[in-house]
Amino acid sequence: MEKETARIEAFSDGVFSIAITLLILEIKIPAAGSGELSVQLLRQWPSYFAFVFSFAFIGIMWINHHRLFTHIKRSNNALLFLNLLLLLGVTAVPFPTAVLAQHLGQSDQRVAAILYHGTYFVIAVFFNLLWRYANRHLLGDDVDSAATDKISAKYAVGPVLYLACIALAWVNVPLSLLLNVALAVFFALPLHRALRVANK
Amino acid sequence: MEKETARIEAFSDGVFSIAITLLILEIKIPAAGSGELSVQLLRQWPSYFAFVFSFAFIGIMWINHHRLFTHIKRSNNALLFLNLLLLLGVTAVPFPTAVLAQHLGQSDQRVAAILYHGTYFVIAVFFNLLWRYANRHLLGDDVDSAATDKISAKYAVGPVLYLACIALAWVNVPLSLLLNVALAVFFALPLHRALRVANK
Amino acid sequence: MEKETARIEAFSDGVFSIAITLLILEIKIPAAGSGELSVQLLRQWPSYFAFVFSFAFIGIMWINHHRLFTHIKRSNNALLFLNLLLLLGVTAVPFPTAVLAQHLGQSDQRVAAILYHGTYFVIAVFFNLLWRYANRHLLGDDVDSAATDKISAKYAVGPVLYLACIALAWVNVPLSLLLNVALAVFFALPLHRALRVANK
Amino acid sequence: MEKETARIEAFSDGVFSIAITLLILEIKIPAAGSGELSVQLLRQWPSYFAFVFSFAFIGIMWINHHRLFTHIKRSNNALLFLNLLLLLGVTAVPFPTAVLAQHLGQSDQRVAAILYHGTYFVIAVFFNLLWRYANRHLLGDDVDSAATDKISAKYAVGPVLYLACIALAWVNVPLSLLLNVALAVFFALPLHRALRVANK
Repeated sequence: MEKETARIEAFSDGVFSIAITLLILEIKIPAAGSGELSVQLLRQWPSYFAFVFSFAFIGIMWINHHRLFTHIKRSNNALLFLNLLLLLGVTAVPFPTAVLAQHLGQSDQRVAAILYHGTYFVIAVFFNLLWRYANRHLLGDDVDSAATDKISAKYAVGPVLYLACIALAWVNVPLSLLLNVALAVFFALPLHRALRVANK
Repeated sequence: MEKETARIEAFSDGVFSIAITLLILEIKIPAAGSGELSVQLLRQWPSYFAFVFSFAFIGIMWINHHRLFTHIKRSNNALLFLNLLLLLGVTAVPFPTAVLAQHLGQSDQRVAAILYHGTYFVIAVFFNLLWRYANRHLLGDDVDSAATDKISAKYAVGPVLYLACIALAWVNVPLSLLLNVALAVFFALPLHRALRVANK
Repeated sequence: MEKETARIEAFSDGVFSIAITLLILEIKIPAAGSGELSVQLLRQWPSYFAFVFSFAFIGIMWINHHRLFTHIKRSNNALLFLNLLLLLGVTAVPFPTAVLAQHLGQSDQRVAAILYHGTYFVIAVFFNLLWRYANRHLLGDDVDSAATDKISAKYAVGPVLYLACIALAWVNVPLSLLLNVALAVFFALPLHRALRVANK
Repeated sequence: MEKETARIEAFSDGVFSIAITLLILEIKIPAAGSGELSVQLLRQWPSYFAFVFSFAFIGIMWINHHRLFTHIKRSNNALLFLNLLLLLGVTAVPFPTAVLAQHLGQSDQRVAAILYHGTYFVIAVFFNLLWRYANRHLLGDDVDSAATDKISAKYAVGPVLYLACIALAWVNVPLSLLLNVALAVFFALPLHRALRVANK
């Protein structure tokens, strides 16, 4: 049933690659004759920040999704639906990104940041649901349970720390975004070590 | 001629994944300085509802398309065209979704709901045409006709019940949307049982 | 070097599937409270016509592209560039489609129709360039030159007849669109016969 | 670990094909009744120029990416991230393209041109980073180092010459765009010769 997983991966790759490419559409084009172009471009810094940030998040999500599916050997209906849930979260990212871009540095930036962190929290929950189900039911027979337990532990901190981002946003929005960046680095990095272990 | 089907599936996967990802673009970004952001975000609830709903519909359509093509072994020109018809319906979904999002809870919500259900009705008809043609001409030699007859019966109720949604929308719009949701669950669930049977 | 062609086909499938799915974005969403929704929806008939028409055109182009690449066995740099030229034309389709949708039935519909037919003329030229080059240099050794000559002849009429559409648009816009539809059917149908011959 | 590279290539193809297709969305549709359509269409020439130009750039980038990955045999985490960096640059292209289209021929065209060249400079740097890393760590054992050294030399001139475009834009914007076009041709052509050598 490997072909089954192949088409899930292909569909997911499609959704990830589209969601990551659509982000650029949310950056507004300054109209001609509406003021100094360089000033207008610089004033849009929150849009560039949000673009790069969400690009990195979706990219790292894709890498992690990619990694999970090297472990998942079989497919079933539940996997299809849990994967769709995850993709629902991923395709939603351009919306909170654009809201953050519009409101960062404005009076309403707290609400925008909470919406942003909240989306990531939900995605992290869906990611854990997918992995936990697959881990229990769909891995190969030669599974290294020490390795998969480490993966489970790593992903389990995601929802908790994105909740911390939401809480932190009430106190200090820039700090909450910094924590969010740190989380992205965290989810990007350990893979590297895992790979090094796997290659031994 | 298996490669033939492979490219149809790849192209269809592309269209499904793009259509499902474009849905988010229809949600409007509240402008800075046009009122309390949290209020503006909450007032857009029909957009979120329509987004999640259409995402689920396209996702379930993809799963069903996926499932059909595990049965379809050969390809020909008629299949290409019938599949294009189905994709025409799928790519159209963002339009009635956005119309519904704009008008749900407004005075014109009945027309928006009928357009929405009507699109699904047309897609259900195209889906049946595709399956019925493939069932007669393009399955493998080892086809289990008891199983394919059950598939035919399941899909045949689709157009009838989407017509019922249209009729119900004349009387009560929220109720018609509820029936539409129930239909999505119906088309999602039986696959699970089918799979369980297939795995025995 | 078959893998080479595989990635060209995959990239082309991606572009075709995105271009065909973006068409729906050009249909405007009637705003709430700006008049009777049903009237507004009906008034947009040129948008629906243009959507279905361009969808059919891109879909048929994809089928033909698909068919050509079952003959093309090898790849080189020239093929990559000629294929990119063709894709340039295909990705441009949403623009003349939207212009036609905006202006059909208006005083400026002639210019819009000429732009529309003109785009198709250019695409037909690019399609011929691609096929003629591949036909001479990149087919397999077991090529059936009687069959490929028939393909060449069929595609050669494309540019001529799209020029005729442009000329006809000066006299009668609806008639020129009808000829364009007939051309789409022409490019869709012969494949069927070709297939029947190929299957003998 | 070849499958690893396969999914990177598939994801990259997805991003390239979407970015190249989104370019058309930046061309504005002249509204009905806002003046002579033909005049409005002609006045938009910078949009067409920018569309064709960016299409060619992304297409040539894709061809070069494609070519690199025929040499890259293995994958690791660093490659995933360097490839994401490159894709970040590629997905950003529609933005400077639209800014250039809006401001070319206007008083602010210098800033728009610098933003445009600057984006290409950054992409060229990312491209070199990706190639240099892969060249050192991820090629096959049978690598022809004379050939790969030529590839390294060819790509190394990219960042330098895009910097020259930026400098030139301060003096003369059209001339800087001409140099940019010449660079695209340069990156397109040598591949052809490389192929001819490779086929001997």
